Amino acid sequence: MSKKLFIPGPIDVSEDVLEKMATPVISHRSKEASELQKSITEKAKKLFYTDNEILLSTSSGTGLMEGSIRCCTAKRAAVFSCGSFGDRWHKMGITNGVPTDLFKVELGQAIEPEMVDKVLATGKYDLITVTHNETSTGIRNPIEDIGQILKKYDDVVYCVDTVSSAGGIKIPVDEIGIDICITSVQKAIGLPPGMSLCTFSEKSRKRAEKVSNRGVYFDLLSMYEYIKKKNYQYPSTPSLSHMFALNYQLEKILEEGLENRFKRHEDMAKIVRNWAEEHFEIFTDKNHLSNTLTVVKNTQNIDVSNLNGELQKRGYLIANGYGELKDKTFRISHMGDYTENDIRDLLKNIDDILGF
Amino acid sequence: MSKKLFIPGPIDVSEDVLEKMATPVISHRSKEASELQKSITEKAKKLFYTDNEILLSTSSGTGLMEGSIRCCTAKRAAVFSCGSFGDRWHKMGITNGVPTDLFKVELGQAIEPEMVDKVLATGKYDLITVTHNETSTGIRNPIEDIGQILKKYDDVVYCVDTVSSAGGIKIPVDEIGIDICITSVQKAIGLPPGMSLCTFSEKSRKRAEKVSNRGVYFDLLSMYEYIKKKNYQYPSTPSLSHMFALNYQLEKILEEGLENRFKRHEDMAKIVRNWAEEHFEIFTDKNHLSNTLTVVKNTQNIDVSNLNGELQKRGYLIANGYGELKDKTFRISHMGDYTENDIRDLLKNIDDILGF
Repeated sequence: MSKKLFIPGPIDVSEDVLEKMATPVISHRSKEASELQKSITEKAKKLFYTDNEILLSTSSGTGLMEGSIRCCTAKRAAVFSCGSFGDRWHKMGITNGVPTDLFKVELGQAIEPEMVDKVLATGKYDLITVTHNETSTGIRNPIEDIGQILKKYDDVVYCVDTVSSAGGIKIPVDEIGIDICITSVQKAIGLPPGMSLCTFSEKSRKRAEKVSNRGVYFDLLSMYEYIKKKNYQYPSTPSLSHMFALNYQLEKILEEGLENRFKRHEDMAKIVRNWAEEHFEIFTDKNHLSNTLTVVKNTQNIDVSNLNGELQKRGYLIANGYGELKDKTFRISHMGDYTENDIRDLLKNIDDILGF
Repeated sequence: MSKKLFIPGPIDVSEDVLEKMATPVISHRSKEASELQKSITEKAKKLFYTDNEILLSTSSGTGLMEGSIRCCTAKRAAVFSCGSFGDRWHKMGITNGVPTDLFKVELGQAIEPEMVDKVLATGKYDLITVTHNETSTGIRNPIEDIGQILKKYDDVVYCVDTVSSAGGIKIPVDEIGIDICITSVQKAIGLPPGMSLCTFSEKSRKRAEKVSNRGVYFDLLSMYEYIKKKNYQYPSTPSLSHMFALNYQLEKILEEGLENRFKRHEDMAKIVRNWAEEHFEIFTDKNHLSNTLTVVKNTQNIDVSNLNGELQKRGYLIANGYGELKDKTFRISHMGDYTENDIRDLLKNIDDILGF
């Protein structure tokens, strides 16, 4: 039996999308490959409400996060972190020899725009990174308000990790002023893992031209130039299977309607939050709740592994807390192609197991 | 109509292998994911005749090539190149700030062991890279003889790119003494592109421990440590679809029998070589011909694009020359799951179009 995955990615993939993964291979240097990448690009621009170019990467989102801080920091990077995935971005800067400082908030709290303003006022930084949706704590950071602050700092490249939000939460990239907006396909977009994508602004491009030692595979500038030079092809051999499936799924997402899709995610989130407040508490600051994932504080001290074991027998899977929040919290994702009914089924099964 | 691809990768994938790409997704942190990676590892060790660890990467082979030169050079790297893919390894060293020197031979010629000996005798280098099968010129380099030379230089890490040979030509990694043997799944292994793998010796591991700024996504040491710490899991989210298909295809390869598979590739190569010599010339030095790919010198000055256009109408695709060899040569690959009959069908169609 294949399980229903309510973990924060990878999540279940609709059968028709899965089938597209089995499309026969084509040459990655053919006209058809160009057309495929161009078609994905047009749809991804709509998803991100952007006129900026779209870069594809055969890797997890980690690869593009690493590429962004490495290729687009000329002076110094400021990483704002509210959990494990923010911390990872700091590590990427450091291990690539990029001068990088880490600014952290308490777990379960959001990054405040005032904090970003204060840091940037020092004039030391020319790139910042923010995690939109922190998968370890369930925080949705106020990237719009941070974008307002950024308008004062012309020189700063704004990178946002939307790995677990894009496709489930509205991210108007150009309106906010995001330069590099990174996501991965296996979360709210609803594909099997193995591909990531990002938007790439003119400011990022000009910055990358000034940075040396950008490496090869995650050199965002060379990906951009290859698109221009080779009419939407990819510098090395990409995962064509993911490209076929992504093109198809983006079409389906646009058919559903972006606003409808975001509303569905909001509705699913409300059901889980109400349930969590009835039986436990929500771990996350209530002013900054994510619509794709809920982190529940384990106030009843239940044995999460045991609950998950029982759930698995019934065909479901949720996630334990991440890192130092293990057993203190547990996580239920509500993203991708799930419906309110799927969420209700899951919660009914949890109630039944826990005797609620 | 899906085309038969006789280009040097990606190549056609058998239908049953393609179907495995559509396997429902599982959690990459589950016991099943560990078992899947362990199962791939056991089979890949047989393919490479090695006891060393196997690292998987969700990327093209380029990613692992970059990771190897970056993570395992402490002093200086010597890149031996006989074409475009060798040159690319040099670029990877340079753009990652690794002190790297390039040693080139003429296009169509092989890298001579004596040349490697002379370079290493300077004592300046602690890592070398060699392309086993140079896809731009059809050269199969004498990695066994180079391995003999390496036995004199204890300190040198031996990296070999077997992207277009592994699965089609025997590569006894431990016997030769290769430290990092890199390949990609979309060539002689016969999968859709999107995943690569390498062997990783103790010498490489110890070397990487001494190198700083190894980055994150292609940090071979962290991949290795994750395998040990998390029982065969992957640091970020891997392409599980490729892992399902790879596990299945490696099983099929072992069922065919490695020696049988290598013999089949040799037989296919002979057919193409005979044909090429009858009508054209072989571009490559005859002492170093590849069994997975033949590069034909365009002595009849045919219009390759035109030929390929006609072939495409009949459901076939071959490749033009690469880089500066475009139009001066054309390339026919004979790798993966093709049979002698497939090769004969292709050649019959070429004969028919060219009026031979």
